[in-house]
Amino acid sequence: MSPLARRCFAEFLGTGLLVTVVVGSGIAAQALSIDAGLRLLENAAATAAGLAVLIVILGPVSGAHFNPVVSLADHYLGRRTRTGLSGRTLGAYVLCQTVGAIGGAVLADAMFAKAPVAWSQHRRSSPHLLLGEVVATAGLVLVIFALAGAKRTSQAPWAVGAYIGGAYFFTSSTSFANPAVTVGRAFSNTFAGIAPVSVPGFVLAELAGAVVGLGLLALLYPAAGVAADDVVVPQVGTSARA
Amino acid sequence: MSPLARRCFAEFLGTGLLVTVVVGSGIAAQALSIDAGLRLLENAAATAAGLAVLIVILGPVSGAHFNPVVSLADHYLGRRTRTGLSGRTLGAYVLCQTVGAIGGAVLADAMFAKAPVAWSQHRRSSPHLLLGEVVATAGLVLVIFALAGAKRTSQAPWAVGAYIGGAYFFTSSTSFANPAVTVGRAFSNTFAGIAPVSVPGFVLAELAGAVVGLGLLALLYPAAGVAADDVVVPQVGTSARA
Amino acid sequence: MSPLARRCFAEFLGTGLLVTVVVGSGIAAQALSIDAGLRLLENAAATAAGLAVLIVILGPVSGAHFNPVVSLADHYLGRRTRTGLSGRTLGAYVLCQTVGAIGGAVLADAMFAKAPVAWSQHRRSSPHLLLGEVVATAGLVLVIFALAGAKRTSQAPWAVGAYIGGAYFFTSSTSFANPAVTVGRAFSNTFAGIAPVSVPGFVLAELAGAVVGLGLLALLYPAAGVAADDVVVPQVGTSARA
Amino acid sequence: MSPLARRCFAEFLGTGLLVTVVVGSGIAAQALSIDAGLRLLENAAATAAGLAVLIVILGPVSGAHFNPVVSLADHYLGRRTRTGLSGRTLGAYVLCQTVGAIGGAVLADAMFAKAPVAWSQHRRSSPHLLLGEVVATAGLVLVIFALAGAKRTSQAPWAVGAYIGGAYFFTSSTSFANPAVTVGRAFSNTFAGIAPVSVPGFVLAELAGAVVGLGLLALLYPAAGVAADDVVVPQVGTSARA
Repeated sequence: MSPLARRCFAEFLGTGLLVTVVVGSGIAAQALSIDAGLRLLENAAATAAGLAVLIVILGPVSGAHFNPVVSLADHYLGRRTRTGLSGRTLGAYVLCQTVGAIGGAVLADAMFAKAPVAWSQHRRSSPHLLLGEVVATAGLVLVIFALAGAKRTSQAPWAVGAYIGGAYFFTSSTSFANPAVTVGRAFSNTFAGIAPVSVPGFVLAELAGAVVGLGLLALLYPAAGVAADDVVVPQVGTSARA
Repeated sequence: MSPLARRCFAEFLGTGLLVTVVVGSGIAAQALSIDAGLRLLENAAATAAGLAVLIVILGPVSGAHFNPVVSLADHYLGRRTRTGLSGRTLGAYVLCQTVGAIGGAVLADAMFAKAPVAWSQHRRSSPHLLLGEVVATAGLVLVIFALAGAKRTSQAPWAVGAYIGGAYFFTSSTSFANPAVTVGRAFSNTFAGIAPVSVPGFVLAELAGAVVGLGLLALLYPAAGVAADDVVVPQVGTSARA
Repeated sequence: MSPLARRCFAEFLGTGLLVTVVVGSGIAAQALSIDAGLRLLENAAATAAGLAVLIVILGPVSGAHFNPVVSLADHYLGRRTRTGLSGRTLGAYVLCQTVGAIGGAVLADAMFAKAPVAWSQHRRSSPHLLLGEVVATAGLVLVIFALAGAKRTSQAPWAVGAYIGGAYFFTSSTSFANPAVTVGRAFSNTFAGIAPVSVPGFVLAELAGAVVGLGLLALLYPAAGVAADDVVVPQVGTSARA
Repeated sequence: MSPLARRCFAEFLGTGLLVTVVVGSGIAAQALSIDAGLRLLENAAATAAGLAVLIVILGPVSGAHFNPVVSLADHYLGRRTRTGLSGRTLGAYVLCQTVGAIGGAVLADAMFAKAPVAWSQHRRSSPHLLLGEVVATAGLVLVIFALAGAKRTSQAPWAVGAYIGGAYFFTSSTSFANPAVTVGRAFSNTFAGIAPVSVPGFVLAELAGAVVGLGLLALLYPAAGVAADDVVVPQVGTSARA
């Protein structure tokens, strides 16, 4: 497997398993608990733990973006120093992330004996939810790239996991913060789903949040023109830039 | 942006987002859960996670005080060795923290489609609650500055997050422990709010707690005359002292 | 005690206490809580914490496998470089793990005044549960050996604990992921039990999951032909290979 | 203050605040939640977080024993190499721990507007509870001193916190595992209390557990004849041995 193929496979697998964690724990929580807050707590705790572990094990291969806005921000921040993803790699990453996310939803549905593909009926389109999604994504982008600016990338897995786990509660949108995951969650008509009609709004809000996050980063860490590959976790030698 | 402006912006943003986390997760918990303890557990878990992450990412810029009593203690402890905040910087920090805290409450209300400003009706003034607030703040000051005395500042983000998360339960006041956050929480008539009439008592109790905490610190770590900038997290080179 | 005897004793004790944690916290959760999801949350949190601590303290003695599929994968991955468990040591490990697991279930039952041995009546045999068990075990094997491939073994205790805690919710099988623990859990007719008739299916699913995990590992970390003794935690000098 | 006085003060304060955390969060949990398991989860989470933080900040001063059986084991293990607590220091530690524990219970009661001293009516004397207490204490002693044997003392705060948090659920006794804390908890007639008549049995079970834990340690780490001062956390230079 070529280095780029291996990196894309890691993004496919990582984004897929992230959606499996999100959707699967959502199905379990809905089946097992009555209280809506307790369901979200179970969903958030499983997601925080699973996401942190996925970053730990796949970061050295691909940077563990698992998220088109993270890859896009990496491309943007590294464009001058040529340390970010190239345009071609960016496209490959986003494709693998999105296909992986859909696969992860199908796997979760299969594990819980649900129809493998069922469009979610859960509409999420109120303006205040979109504001929540802007805040959630701005925060995520700031967390990831500030860690690079501060040379604290070894803290990334647990910091990102803790951030997302907390944001399930402190944002009104329960913090999707990820266009690929948003698409994947449309494929499962369960607790963590989102109706396809609400997807474009969420994705636009996430893009807007990324812009806000990059703006805050520029104010706080003006020298942080770095690549997310080095941000999320340092890469091992075999993963040459493509 | 000047170094001092950048540091103040970090204090503004960090204190603001901390209040967004506290108030936002409180609104979510109140809306989603019935049991009062479960609500507080959700609120505490989100706060602990969010606070730890904010300290990780903003500590290198400003020291991540997010709290007037921490800045004041830093000023006091470093007054002889001139390693603490100067009087002018202290004033700027406290102002940015307080304005940020109010902004954070407004943002949380907006995300959850609440009135942007509504005075809290939640009175918190019983003597035993004030004792709880003294204990909470004494503990927080001791935790932060003992970490410096023990040269364990890299543990600060997770230790401070864990401390506050635990103190939501083991103190009777649910551990505000922060005058700026206390002011901010008066601006939201939701789960985590505090009636304006109760704010002065809480702030006085927090100041008393800071004195107790500094007294314990002097007994345990007599040599800890250090600056909180170096306590919470070591600063990067670009943030010159102002 | 010979080095091999000491290692086997650590596997016996560690697997035993792991089952004590799983079964004991399951009994407590069932006795104390009504909501099925809350019971699983209590069970998952105690298991994640207990497993992480057991790996921290016993890893330096035996590698802290506590799991026949981990030992088997270690043997398989290290067969060419002769860095894995020998066939004889593998047999000793699996035996000690299995006997320990049964002892751990008996101890948990005794602590909670249950009959020391009572076959579980809890059937777990639906195909989607077996798929869940394949996913759970594939993930566990990937987590453990990817940490070695990435030279991040110091993260193993907390990563493995977090993984299993999350997988209690995101897999449909609640993530046994361990043939020895599966056998042990058949000996207790309580919350975490599994009917003996369902054990063979679970063990086969776990073996299939291990194969899937090793396949993913080969794609992601082609150079990771390493021994799990060095994976889970580096060994101290006194534990010579046997 | 002499070095020994400072160390004893740290043991007094740390054990006291530990009981404040245990009893205080128990009172809060009982007042706020209905479900018994949820109450214990809140109590366990607050205790785990608070204990870990107390070890982080007070370990460098006194070793953060907070527990007579830990001090006793330290004395026993270091008796030949003269690296453990001297007999005189042991006596001072145990006295300070016990007085602190009582003070901590009084403080918790005061914070929650309870009678400052009220004997607990909560009898805990069934044989299976005593077995639970043996297991809990054996595990605690093994965790603390195995970390020294494995030269992993920097993990002690979080490992000990996680262990106790998990053991609240996986032992039938909810894991007191500490004679001083057991005495302190007799002084509060609340959720975490223990009737005075049940105290001697619990203390004897804890001593028996310590013996079991030391036996396991001798099998697993035969060279671990070390002082707990160096176990829990390395001491700073100013705290000379007394």
